[in-house]
Amino acid sequence: MDTATTLPRRVRGPRAESSRARLLAAAADVLGREGYTALTMERVAAASGVAKTTLYRHWPTKAALCMDLYLDEAGHELADPDTGDVRRDLEAIVSDVVRLQTRTVAGAAFLGLVAEAQIHPSSRDAFLAEFAERRRGLTRKVLRRAVARRQLRRGVDLDLVIDAIGGATTFRLLQGHAPLDARFAKALVALVLDGARP
Amino acid sequence: MDTATTLPRRVRGPRAESSRARLLAAAADVLGREGYTALTMERVAAASGVAKTTLYRHWPTKAALCMDLYLDEAGHELADPDTGDVRRDLEAIVSDVVRLQTRTVAGAAFLGLVAEAQIHPSSRDAFLAEFAERRRGLTRKVLRRAVARRQLRRGVDLDLVIDAIGGATTFRLLQGHAPLDARFAKALVALVLDGARP
Repeated sequence: MDTATTLPRRVRGPRAESSRARLLAAAADVLGREGYTALTMERVAAASGVAKTTLYRHWPTKAALCMDLYLDEAGHELADPDTGDVRRDLEAIVSDVVRLQTRTVAGAAFLGLVAEAQIHPSSRDAFLAEFAERRRGLTRKVLRRAVARRQLRRGVDLDLVIDAIGGATTFRLLQGHAPLDARFAKALVALVLDGARP
Repeated sequence: MDTATTLPRRVRGPRAESSRARLLAAAADVLGREGYTALTMERVAAASGVAKTTLYRHWPTKAALCMDLYLDEAGHELADPDTGDVRRDLEAIVSDVVRLQTRTVAGAAFLGLVAEAQIHPSSRDAFLAEFAERRRGLTRKVLRRAVARRQLRRGVDLDLVIDAIGGATTFRLLQGHAPLDARFAKALVALVLDGARP
């Protein structure tokens, strides 16, 4: 395990890239089929055929591995829809998140990271910086543009809008009490834009 | 550990009540001072001076113990404010949750339960039934009354309103990126009632 702290964090070269890809594919497979509890470093090394020391050289912890699983899926979702209309921009963002969380291994990786962040507070900062701030940054950009176009009230608390949208989505994912789908994405954006009053 | 499955779940009588109270007080103390990771069954038994077999007779798992820690704090928060106005009713509910999560040991217990529910899916149902549905039920009652009074649109999706309000609050608690306070409670309720459009 000492390799995790003494070796360089980034492993370079085509051989490293291919072991990284094999390890991520094996981890995604275990996570997708068997869930977060079954995902252990031992299991990933065995399933990939890559040495455990190599696995630890890429990711010192299971949380770090899950973060990369999440970001690999989420990375290409972080595109700015820029449709010219705040409703359509937000619907695109929520639909992307819903698809990511429900149709890819990112949902299970995200729930695992939420759990890890509560149990090991040290992983919380990385989780916040990598996951939360990247996505918040994109939504903030969309909302600022909407304020400039007068599609949103001047002075509206953008972080609060992000919390209501991201929070409702996360709440359904965590509690699993109601469907996360395109209909939900549209209705949530309409509620946050227009409110629940008559 | 087999006592957990073979003994009756509810332990009766004044002696049992006093050991339960001592165990809960010790657990709240460990959780409040040292966090969820430090909270182990061994630690709670030692800190309370109650036998570990008695602890397991009350709660077969750490998750079950955290659920009672949460519910003991949350129980008296589940009062219907019934002010006659939906805005004030919702502000009272959000303020209660904010106070509960930030000023009492319930916040740490809740985060622990969120983590457990992801790691051990079997604890998810109990978490949902006990925590989520009890609080959702109260908010649903407040919202239905508001629809009847025409303070909310007919046909508004009440569960979506609950997700936006509860989700934003949980998001701030999970991510710890922005203050959870009375100002947040007011602004969140205003956003959900009136929307972010000009």
